Amino acid sequence: MSATNRQVLLKSRPQGEPTKDNFELVDAAIPEPAEGEYLSRTIWLSLDPYMRGRMAETKGYAANVGLGTPMVGGSVGQVVKSRHPKFRDGDYLVEYSGWQSHAVSNGAMSMKLDPAVAPLSAALSVLGMPGQTAWWGLMQIGAPKVGETVVVSAASGAVGSVVGQLAKIHGCRAVGIAGGKDKCDYVVNELGFDACVDYKAAGGNLFRAIREACPKGIDVYFENVGGAIQAAVVAQLNDFARVPLCGLISQYNEMQMNPGPDWRLLLVKRALVKGFIVSDHFAEMPGFWQEVPALVKSGRIKYREDIVQGIDNVPEAFMGLLKGRNFGKLLVQVSEDPTRR
Amino acid sequence: MSATNRQVLLKSRPQGEPTKDNFELVDAAIPEPAEGEYLSRTIWLSLDPYMRGRMAETKGYAANVGLGTPMVGGSVGQVVKSRHPKFRDGDYLVEYSGWQSHAVSNGAMSMKLDPAVAPLSAALSVLGMPGQTAWWGLMQIGAPKVGETVVVSAASGAVGSVVGQLAKIHGCRAVGIAGGKDKCDYVVNELGFDACVDYKAAGGNLFRAIREACPKGIDVYFENVGGAIQAAVVAQLNDFARVPLCGLISQYNEMQMNPGPDWRLLLVKRALVKGFIVSDHFAEMPGFWQEVPALVKSGRIKYREDIVQGIDNVPEAFMGLLKGRNFGKLLVQVSEDPTRR
Repeated sequence: MSATNRQVLLKSRPQGEPTKDNFELVDAAIPEPAEGEYLSRTIWLSLDPYMRGRMAETKGYAANVGLGTPMVGGSVGQVVKSRHPKFRDGDYLVEYSGWQSHAVSNGAMSMKLDPAVAPLSAALSVLGMPGQTAWWGLMQIGAPKVGETVVVSAASGAVGSVVGQLAKIHGCRAVGIAGGKDKCDYVVNELGFDACVDYKAAGGNLFRAIREACPKGIDVYFENVGGAIQAAVVAQLNDFARVPLCGLISQYNEMQMNPGPDWRLLLVKRALVKGFIVSDHFAEMPGFWQEVPALVKSGRIKYREDIVQGIDNVPEAFMGLLKGRNFGKLLVQVSEDPTRR
Repeated sequence: MSATNRQVLLKSRPQGEPTKDNFELVDAAIPEPAEGEYLSRTIWLSLDPYMRGRMAETKGYAANVGLGTPMVGGSVGQVVKSRHPKFRDGDYLVEYSGWQSHAVSNGAMSMKLDPAVAPLSAALSVLGMPGQTAWWGLMQIGAPKVGETVVVSAASGAVGSVVGQLAKIHGCRAVGIAGGKDKCDYVVNELGFDACVDYKAAGGNLFRAIREACPKGIDVYFENVGGAIQAAVVAQLNDFARVPLCGLISQYNEMQMNPGPDWRLLLVKRALVKGFIVSDHFAEMPGFWQEVPALVKSGRIKYREDIVQGIDNVPEAFMGLLKGRNFGKLLVQVSEDPTRR
């Protein structure tokens, strides 16, 4: 156990793309838990696109992060010193420690993990927020029917990969959109999607490339990226299409508003677009817990992790995430995971 | 009864705004009904924004109108000669005769009217397609809750006027958007909306004018117009707002696509946008029939008609409709209505 609490603070708010100057690495004293609290060491830190919104001046769907404080974020940790009735020293937890090596918590948002059920890090990917996001958006908003075509952008990512695999399991044609041959090969060959469009290779022919991958049009578009991909997909929606609007990663660094599709396209197709954030729906997840863990255990749903070592590399890893440089769920290993072989 | 069938044919497809040259007035022979058909004379012809889509080269949600044939449209007529088992000479019907003084029909889309229940023309406005559009979009997509703010554009129109009155009846703050002082005065003083924004007077201050009329933000936006009004409203949606997307009249004449709002606005607010057309839902209207006719009869829902005399004036009346020149439901009286005092 390191002698200090290593933290990544938000030093200034990014104007456009975040840079290293927006962050500051500091060593703070390791805090002491009060009665009803516990201290944990962070093992795994999750880096997710939504965090860009928390850095902004203006409020998004959650409060932004104060300057000079650690960035927020989900994590997996181990209890080091507990004065909490529910948690004991040595317990593994999924929690919200933020970007720091140690944290004190009252446990309100913490949940115990059993390493025998799944690797600890899965609580931050396929069985955590990204997996639940995929399930809720696809099943509750997308409501896919057998034989329909489901398109998902950022298809090799933590959310997109689960969306496409669930779509296949529910009898749909699953088409991914991803950047680069490696990601597309993975999506088709490893995850079992029916097709994947490489938007980087397609360039100005993106519309046609999507059309070729979706000969019967698009019934569900699970939106993660926005921008040119959004425009090309929305123009190919079928009548009564559903668009779970989960993220717009290509636009998060933009200072200006980015025009969306002409609503005539939505009107004529009687399409539905619904923005959502999974934290509104954590209480509505019994269906997820009934379905997904068993599919992961049996190997029918696969997932991939992109692991960066050491908390000092968090700012750079996060900047790469916004550019699609990661391949699989981006995790930072902050300290040893004794359960990992 | 005139000796010929006066028709307005679609002569060419409008490029942008329709002009008189897109239409041709002709006298055709009055057709003879075959067995199982009836001949009717048109009394009232409905002019509606959706008709602009039927004139276009490309297919919208319904087939476009063939060149050299009469424009389609809802109408009220009287049976002149019936060889149909269900309809008798003299019956009043709501039907789809299109832009012509006489029509033969197999009655598949026709429904008998009782002039004792409501004026015949109401079957084309508050009790017809516009009224059902208002009810379905507001109640089924908008799902307004007591105390919420409902904004409707084209508020003095056939659809918008019913939306706002229903919103009031269901305990909401109803805010209209309309063009000009006369329309806004009517919406507030006659229809009982809480406020109405005159978008023509507001000019560049539209956003602020809407904000002042909606101090608690906007929970439901019933979208009829698109363009600058859409942009100003969508930027003021509350969390979990619903947008029944009914029409985009300001954009129908545009040749180019018109950018919509940045989807970040929908994502952050977890808003829902749903395009719809009432003809998909005629079978789901029991709620409408239970609620609205009684409200019309008791005078709690008011409506206004803008009547143009004579079928020869149809093209000009339609062009004016797309510019918001009508005030109330636009109807063309093609022949005498013996039930009208």
